Amino acid sequence: MSEPSSSASAASGKASTTSVDDNAKQHRVDDASRSSKQRDRSHIRTTHSVAFSNDSGTYGLEIPSTSISLSDTVTPAFLPGEASSTTPNAPFEDYNTEGPEHDVLKGLPALRAEWITDRKDTVSYQGRRRDLEDDGKAAVRRGEASKEWQGERRDPRRGKEHPVTQMWYARQGVITPEMKFVAEREHCDVELVRTELAAGRAVMPLNINHPEAEPMIIGEKFLVKINANMGNSAVTSSIDEEVEKLTWACKWGADTVMDLSTGNDIHTTREWILRNSPVPIGTVPIYQALEKVDEDATRLTWELFRDTVIEQCEQGVDYMTIHAGVLLRYVPLTANRVTGIVSRGGSIMAQWCLAHHQESFIYTHFEELCEIFKQYDVCFSLGDGLRPGSLADANDQAQFAELMTLAELTQKAWNHDVQVMIEGPGHIPFDTVRMNIEIEKALCKGAPFYTLGPLTTDCAPGYDHITSAIGATEIARYGTAMLCYVTPKEHLGLPNKDDVKTGVITYKIAAHAADIAKHHQGAQDRDLAISKARFEFRWMDQFNLSYDPDTAIAFHDDTLPAEPAKMAHFCSMCGPKFCSMAISQNIRSEYGDAEQQEEFIRNGMEDMSRAFHKTGDQLYVPQH
Amino acid sequence: MSEPSSSASAASGKASTTSVDDNAKQHRVDDASRSSKQRDRSHIRTTHSVAFSNDSGTYGLEIPSTSISLSDTVTPAFLPGEASSTTPNAPFEDYNTEGPEHDVLKGLPALRAEWITDRKDTVSYQGRRRDLEDDGKAAVRRGEASKEWQGERRDPRRGKEHPVTQMWYARQGVITPEMKFVAEREHCDVELVRTELAAGRAVMPLNINHPEAEPMIIGEKFLVKINANMGNSAVTSSIDEEVEKLTWACKWGADTVMDLSTGNDIHTTREWILRNSPVPIGTVPIYQALEKVDEDATRLTWELFRDTVIEQCEQGVDYMTIHAGVLLRYVPLTANRVTGIVSRGGSIMAQWCLAHHQESFIYTHFEELCEIFKQYDVCFSLGDGLRPGSLADANDQAQFAELMTLAELTQKAWNHDVQVMIEGPGHIPFDTVRMNIEIEKALCKGAPFYTLGPLTTDCAPGYDHITSAIGATEIARYGTAMLCYVTPKEHLGLPNKDDVKTGVITYKIAAHAADIAKHHQGAQDRDLAISKARFEFRWMDQFNLSYDPDTAIAFHDDTLPAEPAKMAHFCSMCGPKFCSMAISQNIRSEYGDAEQQEEFIRNGMEDMSRAFHKTGDQLYVPQH
Repeated sequence: MSEPSSSASAASGKASTTSVDDNAKQHRVDDASRSSKQRDRSHIRTTHSVAFSNDSGTYGLEIPSTSISLSDTVTPAFLPGEASSTTPNAPFEDYNTEGPEHDVLKGLPALRAEWITDRKDTVSYQGRRRDLEDDGKAAVRRGEASKEWQGERRDPRRGKEHPVTQMWYARQGVITPEMKFVAEREHCDVELVRTELAAGRAVMPLNINHPEAEPMIIGEKFLVKINANMGNSAVTSSIDEEVEKLTWACKWGADTVMDLSTGNDIHTTREWILRNSPVPIGTVPIYQALEKVDEDATRLTWELFRDTVIEQCEQGVDYMTIHAGVLLRYVPLTANRVTGIVSRGGSIMAQWCLAHHQESFIYTHFEELCEIFKQYDVCFSLGDGLRPGSLADANDQAQFAELMTLAELTQKAWNHDVQVMIEGPGHIPFDTVRMNIEIEKALCKGAPFYTLGPLTTDCAPGYDHITSAIGATEIARYGTAMLCYVTPKEHLGLPNKDDVKTGVITYKIAAHAADIAKHHQGAQDRDLAISKARFEFRWMDQFNLSYDPDTAIAFHDDTLPAEPAKMAHFCSMCGPKFCSMAISQNIRSEYGDAEQQEEFIRNGMEDMSRAFHKTGDQLYVPQH
Repeated sequence: MSEPSSSASAASGKASTTSVDDNAKQHRVDDASRSSKQRDRSHIRTTHSVAFSNDSGTYGLEIPSTSISLSDTVTPAFLPGEASSTTPNAPFEDYNTEGPEHDVLKGLPALRAEWITDRKDTVSYQGRRRDLEDDGKAAVRRGEASKEWQGERRDPRRGKEHPVTQMWYARQGVITPEMKFVAEREHCDVELVRTELAAGRAVMPLNINHPEAEPMIIGEKFLVKINANMGNSAVTSSIDEEVEKLTWACKWGADTVMDLSTGNDIHTTREWILRNSPVPIGTVPIYQALEKVDEDATRLTWELFRDTVIEQCEQGVDYMTIHAGVLLRYVPLTANRVTGIVSRGGSIMAQWCLAHHQESFIYTHFEELCEIFKQYDVCFSLGDGLRPGSLADANDQAQFAELMTLAELTQKAWNHDVQVMIEGPGHIPFDTVRMNIEIEKALCKGAPFYTLGPLTTDCAPGYDHITSAIGATEIARYGTAMLCYVTPKEHLGLPNKDDVKTGVITYKIAAHAADIAKHHQGAQDRDLAISKARFEFRWMDQFNLSYDPDTAIAFHDDTLPAEPAKMAHFCSMCGPKFCSMAISQNIRSEYGDAEQQEEFIRNGMEDMSRAFHKTGDQLYVPQH
């Protein structure tokens, strides 16, 4: 346990008289903990080359990872006269999501371009017209986009005769370079990747028009993944900021990013994001569609929506949230709820259904959506438009009625060889989290579950990254494949770059805790490495092995700023004499390892035993 | 879901060019989120009076609670011509831990003084000499304590003929004012309190020499409690700071506080803390004992330890961590561990056992400790000296061997009618958390478990409040009665006042999520109140009902600072047109409640049905 020091002030429990100096010091710690300086210095992206061939071609796949160098272990001598020994520690290798360094004005290299064309099952074509309306009214008024993309532009491609989805290839028994790439990243057999894809229990969201993305997989048998949401809104944020947040999120470990823009420049922002994203990009196309009808949901039509979907397919969006499970008859099930419908897409579709007195066009045209998605390999993320927005509404009829419809739609998509994820809640009590993933797996036949948290209490706005990380760990433990992060700003405002970092790190923790709980192969390796570093007082290794080296070092320096403290053989909380780890180490250097200690005790016991005989073998010696 | 805005900078993913203005703005948000201004304005301590009599006397018990005023619900008219209606919302009542306002120089009133003397089973006596050595070498050198306590000083009391523990009274069938007070706070029957105490499944740590404390209970059947650690160390922190942190922790909801001081002025610091603490105070007496022998563990003796324990009993410490389960033969079980012994008390006792080649004096003299504790009603917190400090060491022989010894000692203490809690890990994988509380309950016959987290990964120094809150929620869900908080500084440095706040709020969340998961009566009331406020856009109510109103309001204002935004009928993330809650409300005002909506759909279906007949009853109409 640790005991605190204070940044000081009067002991009245009323006014805080924190001094200006303390404030300045605290701000320096805050700023340092928000940077990526130490991370950039210590987390180095590397790749190793793997040869791969199939019927389409032969490839040298460059598999990325993060390498963290570690210093040597120095073991002090046990016997007098012995020298201390030094053992090197191999660099720690981690899953890397940040992509290669590149110029954001030009975009990332098209990693998969050749893999896709070599398959000879797609054609390049003159895409849908680029329309200023795609960027909203302000762009039309101006007569130009805010910041037109000037980098690489390729004509879109689409499938010719058969679906070009990874699911289709998997079902045909074809191992693609994408599958091999993923198997290398996940340290698993490529047959596992193929069979899970074929069964629909895993997805690889990889639009053929987003060849920049590094293949990754989302499924229960693989590492738990995390998604970071971003995107501009009506009033705030610029394209630069969105691209910066993308890069920032990937740096800290986001496995996918959703661009949820609802404001101006939606098309152009998305172009910038796609061309610079090493991870799959998801969207909610109904948001852009709604912008095109002046934010009047009742004016939405299938034709407009389809056009928007194709626009995004051609740009390269890898997965799309489609709220096709909001049926007309489910809407009244939400009418007496405490918080109604809290999904934006869900509320838009509900409004449309009631106004038109029909099932929504995305439900009635679902097969057509499948026809489109299979030409680009866009993955469905079937939206939970009726997810509960409060504990009071959790696990109600509306939620499960919609889930059953999503199960039905999953089967339809699979009939087209289109990949599917299912989105999940929301706000639900902790004891019902497990049931939520289990019913999803049962109804949706193992389609990957992709959940927002869930939040386990409604009472802590400002801390919903925490209320939800608790639920996220539990739901991932039982099989949820991807976790959508929640930032501290949830329910309160728009997350800034710092909130993105906090959200990503918090969800790295939840995903990792779940991987460990699932006994995922090698999941505890990093814990072992950092614990060894901790016990051996390799402070810099401890900082660098943490998910956020900058915060770790800033917090350490807040207490013991001097450089020598990072060499110190005691921890910064306890000081030299009260450090349990130092005492443990002293015990080892004095009494040896387990065997030596046991022998020491045995020998001593014999001495005691002899003494015991002398005192007359009394079991209980009077204590006073 | 929410989408982020950014605090800006270049989109290169390398250098951050955050402007000075943005930095200053961020610092203002940070400072506001660290204060208690909004909380102090909205969380008002109140008491209500409850009459109580037993054979010893008649009392008007003043039961504390926190009252949060709420504004009215305004329901817009549904039918044209109807007026909108206004419904008042009753103030929300919460469990209060902050104690009455008072002058810290004088200390709190002795709430329980009369309850204790009326029982006529204790005597006041001339206590153990006050010795400057109790405050460490520096005080001896100076010839005086740093800041001698000048407030109320009472002669210590102790029991006369029988144990004066709440357990003893409970077993005699006596309902004490303390039990009644607790039953009122917990909204339960006082017989539940008595029977759980009698069975040892709950404890009320209430030293008769700490009459200032407001009675509280720790047990599986009651609200999950949280403890906040503080205390000075060799180099940092003053008495004023410790008292301020105490007040601060209680304000945010700490149910007990541990003073883990290891530096100078231990005795005097504790005096200040006890005289000002409305919550039970715990200590680890071996820390002070070690200070008295110049931090040389091998020089510790039973006599010195006993004297230190009596010193603390007379001051009023309510519970003490005693690492009596560290047996000599268990020490080698830790020798090949990755992180050895990480409990300070555990490592000190292990060192002593090996050096003296004997079982520790706290194990061999345990019955004597019981004799002392029962005269003051000090509760054992049996320390887990061999708890795992890393996932690699979790659930090993050392950990469970010690737990079995703690079970044995629990029985001994209960034979003396002395109250007992059991301390628990530490670092353990999430999937083994449940097993840990279940084996504890089985072995220790339901004695309350009191755990540090547990942390579910070792990889996130800087975020261990989060890694541990995940484990804490799970372990509390299955019966852990009190959670020891972990702050963001764990493993890195000394928590300051801000870390104390973050730790307490994070653990309020974990405890509350567990109460909900346990279906504790009324546990969801606050969630319902805040969710209603959220849906009705009662922004100030939402802020005030959160565990940390200051952070909630600071984060909200970061996005929409203007006052009118707090009246706005849309949320700060989405803007007016994309707000799902606003859309939900529009649906209700247009189509009515569930019944009205269903009727609307039914009527429409009939119209559709007639139209369907006209088109020739084709089930599938071609869509193009």
